[in-house]
Amino acid sequence: MKRLSILGSTGSIGQNTLEVISRYRDRFSVKALAVRNNVRMLEEQIREFRPEVVAVYDEAAASELKKMNPPVEILQGEQGLIEAATLDGVDMVVSAIVGSPGLVPTYEAIKAGKDIALATKEALVMAGHLVMPEAARRGVKILPVDSEHSAVFQCLDGTDMEEVEKIILTASGGPFRKKSVQELGKVTPAEALKHPNWDMGKKISIDSATLMNKGLEVMEAYWLFNVPVEKIGVILHPQSIIHSMVRFIDGSVISQMSVPDMKGPISYALSYPERFGNVLPALNLAEIGELTFEEPDMERYPSLALTYKALRAGGTMPCVLNAANEIAVEAFLDGKILFTDISRIVSDTMSEHTVARGETIEEVISVSEWAKQRAKEIVENNNGN
Amino acid sequence: MKRLSILGSTGSIGQNTLEVISRYRDRFSVKALAVRNNVRMLEEQIREFRPEVVAVYDEAAASELKKMNPPVEILQGEQGLIEAATLDGVDMVVSAIVGSPGLVPTYEAIKAGKDIALATKEALVMAGHLVMPEAARRGVKILPVDSEHSAVFQCLDGTDMEEVEKIILTASGGPFRKKSVQELGKVTPAEALKHPNWDMGKKISIDSATLMNKGLEVMEAYWLFNVPVEKIGVILHPQSIIHSMVRFIDGSVISQMSVPDMKGPISYALSYPERFGNVLPALNLAEIGELTFEEPDMERYPSLALTYKALRAGGTMPCVLNAANEIAVEAFLDGKILFTDISRIVSDTMSEHTVARGETIEEVISVSEWAKQRAKEIVENNNGN
Repeated sequence: MKRLSILGSTGSIGQNTLEVISRYRDRFSVKALAVRNNVRMLEEQIREFRPEVVAVYDEAAASELKKMNPPVEILQGEQGLIEAATLDGVDMVVSAIVGSPGLVPTYEAIKAGKDIALATKEALVMAGHLVMPEAARRGVKILPVDSEHSAVFQCLDGTDMEEVEKIILTASGGPFRKKSVQELGKVTPAEALKHPNWDMGKKISIDSATLMNKGLEVMEAYWLFNVPVEKIGVILHPQSIIHSMVRFIDGSVISQMSVPDMKGPISYALSYPERFGNVLPALNLAEIGELTFEEPDMERYPSLALTYKALRAGGTMPCVLNAANEIAVEAFLDGKILFTDISRIVSDTMSEHTVARGETIEEVISVSEWAKQRAKEIVENNNGN
Repeated sequence: MKRLSILGSTGSIGQNTLEVISRYRDRFSVKALAVRNNVRMLEEQIREFRPEVVAVYDEAAASELKKMNPPVEILQGEQGLIEAATLDGVDMVVSAIVGSPGLVPTYEAIKAGKDIALATKEALVMAGHLVMPEAARRGVKILPVDSEHSAVFQCLDGTDMEEVEKIILTASGGPFRKKSVQELGKVTPAEALKHPNWDMGKKISIDSATLMNKGLEVMEAYWLFNVPVEKIGVILHPQSIIHSMVRFIDGSVISQMSVPDMKGPISYALSYPERFGNVLPALNLAEIGELTFEEPDMERYPSLALTYKALRAGGTMPCVLNAANEIAVEAFLDGKILFTDISRIVSDTMSEHTVARGETIEEVISVSEWAKQRAKEIVENNNGN
């Protein structure tokens, strides 16, 4: 019986995780659930999964939940998330809080020796240089939940990294793959939120449209698989059937595919090193007919180029990129900036940053806060123009 | 230093094997070479690779080689092949003799405790029920050289077979994938020999056009991976980039790809469990653009259906199918029968056979001889009509 704490249980990954768990009640128990603010859904999850504690990040929402009087201990704020992440008796933490608030609880869970099923990209993007050595020190397994990293993890299957020539992440290219760079300036948030293959949260849907999501995944792969940035490539694959691949030094390429459904990688992270049955329907390639591939056009997707630039700069630069992007995406969703402004705001913020080492989580967070503040100012100036 | 004996060194697999070895002289030495009758090429190989012994199956060709007076011991006949296959000090035998003459030397090599890099399908098709238990008893590794089985082997990578839901072999569909069943009756041997992706010997090129080759590979997979026939499927994939795949119980599919070049699987069989660098050029999927997939049409490819039927019948039936097919392909290449007669002759021969257990190699061979004889008679009667 694996005892789980699920951070971000009402998000897309969290809900899918609970759906997988509901099929394997004999294998898993839910000890803790943590959410940002969706207490209505959390209350339902409490009734169904009977956790010992729940944590609500938003204090007002926590009060609202307390009024519902659910049969569970209720924690709140960042401290609440950390307690849920480090709870005694928890074997694995599913880290699925979107954005930078996911970093500290994930880091604390690792320090407490919990294995991590990792969906929160920010933990590695912002602080991979702190998170991975800490995990190694504690003997903690970091199991990827992103479909791409799960694919790479499955393709590698313990192979000696010296035999790996390239990790190739696939990207759908998002909803605007066919649009001209000119047309991209006019797309609306509603159009950007329509991802062709995956049903996801808002932030990640916009990041998929800009390919920033893929860039963040390049950063994640860099830390998870300990490969130089030159060994990580991206290819467009609009059908999202091949979730990623690994090319070995002999020219052999191993790829992982499935119907696009997050229950696949979630289940693998939970069941590893085993596989569970009854997770996804069989992939029917004859029915799908064709899988296509293209090189990503860096002019259409400047955010992807920025991530490589940030990763090469190293230190706190990826953290700055990530923070500026959070602000820029928010501003785009609020109708304050154009789609094409997103990467420009990120780039402008990066160009004002002097790379530091980021030797503590606190330092990383303070850099992130600086970058958010600066990006907000750039957004405002943008509108002033 | 791995010491090799290469059976069938002048065939397509043999030549490619020697090309791989020539790049890794510090890893391999060639102790023995064996061929059917191409002594002119063998003589060149002797000069380049300096084996201790060579074996020539055809006695007249052996005499011809002796006249060339090469600096090597020359063996001849089936006994010569067996001696080359069981030579003291040989670690691995590359079994790449086309057709049933490959069976006995391969079996004897296993009995002598040599690891096998297996290209000769017939060893498993005719006698998998004897070969595999013998290999298990002797602790002999059977490493597949067929691109499809090498792919499956790479995808499985030691996984528990209980987690495997389906092994899916890819098939190019050969040169006649777009022809109507009526048009198939009129194709010439020259047309049938033009394989779209692979440069191979004549027998295997015709078998690729009928999909009999894929059927024989289904049989090989059955023995190599110890899975029930229901768990082995075939999908058409005309580009021959994905060499095969494995679907696991959770719906995840692992596939292996590369540019279509036999040096890939050959190198993997030789280097396993390691991988060598500098084997194949990097696969460029963006350049290839698309990979397509179709269900095989059993009306166009009756030979494939026959192999499943033979495998289900079990015992000596696969051996009969294989023997009848050898004769039918030869008759087609000689212009004696139509392309569409091949499967009919195989089917007619099978329908006259009463399945036996095939408890010894001798019994298997005698059944094979009976089937060849019977198939020849059916070919003659076919022409009489």
